[in-house]
Amino acid sequence: MKMALTEAKKGRYLTYTNPMVGAVIVKEDRIIGSGHHLGFGYEHAEINAFNNVSAQESISGATMFVTLEPCSHFGKTPPCCREIVRRGVKEIYIAQEDPNPLVAGHGIKYLKEHGVEVHVGAVEKTARELNEFYNFFYQNKRPFITLKVAQTLDGRISLARSHRTYLTDETVFENVQRLRADYQAIVVGSGTVLADDPLLTVRSMKLKYPPVRVVLDRSGRTTSKYKIMNDDAATWIFTENEKMIARFATSSVKVFFKSKWTLKKIVQQLAQQGIQSLLVEGGARIQDAFLDVPLMQQLIVYQINQLAGGNSLSAFQSERAAHSLLELKLTERKQVGNALRISLRR
Amino acid sequence: MKMALTEAKKGRYLTYTNPMVGAVIVKEDRIIGSGHHLGFGYEHAEINAFNNVSAQESISGATMFVTLEPCSHFGKTPPCCREIVRRGVKEIYIAQEDPNPLVAGHGIKYLKEHGVEVHVGAVEKTARELNEFYNFFYQNKRPFITLKVAQTLDGRISLARSHRTYLTDETVFENVQRLRADYQAIVVGSGTVLADDPLLTVRSMKLKYPPVRVVLDRSGRTTSKYKIMNDDAATWIFTENEKMIARFATSSVKVFFKSKWTLKKIVQQLAQQGIQSLLVEGGARIQDAFLDVPLMQQLIVYQINQLAGGNSLSAFQSERAAHSLLELKLTERKQVGNALRISLRR
Repeated sequence: MKMALTEAKKGRYLTYTNPMVGAVIVKEDRIIGSGHHLGFGYEHAEINAFNNVSAQESISGATMFVTLEPCSHFGKTPPCCREIVRRGVKEIYIAQEDPNPLVAGHGIKYLKEHGVEVHVGAVEKTARELNEFYNFFYQNKRPFITLKVAQTLDGRISLARSHRTYLTDETVFENVQRLRADYQAIVVGSGTVLADDPLLTVRSMKLKYPPVRVVLDRSGRTTSKYKIMNDDAATWIFTENEKMIARFATSSVKVFFKSKWTLKKIVQQLAQQGIQSLLVEGGARIQDAFLDVPLMQQLIVYQINQLAGGNSLSAFQSERAAHSLLELKLTERKQVGNALRISLRR
Repeated sequence: MKMALTEAKKGRYLTYTNPMVGAVIVKEDRIIGSGHHLGFGYEHAEINAFNNVSAQESISGATMFVTLEPCSHFGKTPPCCREIVRRGVKEIYIAQEDPNPLVAGHGIKYLKEHGVEVHVGAVEKTARELNEFYNFFYQNKRPFITLKVAQTLDGRISLARSHRTYLTDETVFENVQRLRADYQAIVVGSGTVLADDPLLTVRSMKLKYPPVRVVLDRSGRTTSKYKIMNDDAATWIFTENEKMIARFATSSVKVFFKSKWTLKKIVQQLAQQGIQSLLVEGGARIQDAFLDVPLMQQLIVYQINQLAGGNSLSAFQSERAAHSLLELKLTERKQVGNALRISLRR
């Protein structure tokens, strides 16, 4: 199963809304085939494992190890379950059940009904972690949300609002780029667009599915002149200003208009659009809104050894009165470039 | 010399404005005596080392190792230099020259003039670190200043001004108590006194010279009803409100009145009072004032894994516009209780 997990990881950055899956076929204590899900729209791991078995071998009577429950539905490819039965696999080890309601136990049921000996739960924890966002999304019906903050030692992100202060170095920049690549969407407020004019792309990697750039622009302050509106990746704007629809009518930017958006409704809308994971990159007011609900699973802080003080802008800042503390659990602390990278979970 | 340094450390918490000093006497490759400065007003290390030699031994012709230049002046005790010469010490190793202008080379000069062979600079760095505050004070004519902050991950010290929020646990409390014991004075603002009513004493240790509690109370808001005004340790108030003199006339609290105090003038006044080291414990406005000048050598942050957000109070907060970042050098990161203790220098 560990080998199957290693196989699965080969699909990183390629499977998009699909999970990473790996499969290994064993017969008489010999590995005769292995494969992984190559990418969204392509063959699943099981089929690739079958295709990988040499013509001289007989699959009939073999044992299969697969990191996720084989699918039972016709999607972009035919169901894997049928192929597993057709090929005569005798026994199958499945790391975790698929939380996607299209599969969710149906695959296992089908296999059992067709005489395959099924074992579920081997190395399950590791398998679940591999597709953490995918699992979270189907279990909770909303995206996994990570807040990302680059701050001074005293928790400030900028010397002044509407002004960009450069805090972190090139190494942190590269680290953030890699972080972005794991998410399906990146969220920023219009204030960040106006002050920083960021691209919010993953420049260091050629991604088949670059994260969607989501701009929260209640009053409709952004225009097509900002870099984020270019075609390097999809851009979605959430606004309460109806004029934005006309403003972006001829561009590829997608405008989600509603006379009243709440953060919860925005996240719901993103879930409906199939977004399984969200990286929130600020600014202060947006981060504080996510903290206030609270609507977040993870926080990643890049903290530098500098002080700003005075009335400079805090990482989570708004006019609301803070009534309680939100306790987080530390998962990792690591020096990255000029910053201490602190990762925490709720 | 290392043994002399170990001897010196025995005087910790006892020497007050005097440095910690250790001395070792060697004759024919044998240690025949050792001693340390027992405490403010008591014999110096050299004299204690002589007194420690057994009556059967002859000191004449011996070599002495001492962590600080022997004194040449009549203070609370007669000058050690004379005694060293009188006892017939032939050779002396001195770790560092005494920066105190009363000695500052005069001791070495006297010894040389009286035929003692003098070597200066052995293990000097360690010796200097041992009496860091003492050395800093005489070299810079002002106290060594450490800012201490207990904050959330987002740099907040309290959910709201004038309200105490408990952030750190018992282990951190003990750690802060030990930290205080190394300083001659602790500084807080009147806001902290009114909101927290702290004692600011070192409860876990019986100190002969507990740090002076310095309250910065420009407008004169504090009264004798606050715990900090009790007799557990000395309390000094810096104020621009002349009425404070009368208010504390019958108490042991010392009032420093001036129609206009600046932070620089306060620190100067503390230096004149012989304060060699200062621990600043807040609140937000006081810390920010020390950052603004900037007037600080060290920062110690106790950071917990919680978020406050909104309009909660930041560790260094005031109405001033922050125009630049102050870069600090990390010296230590250590988990202490529920907090990450981060120590930094300018």
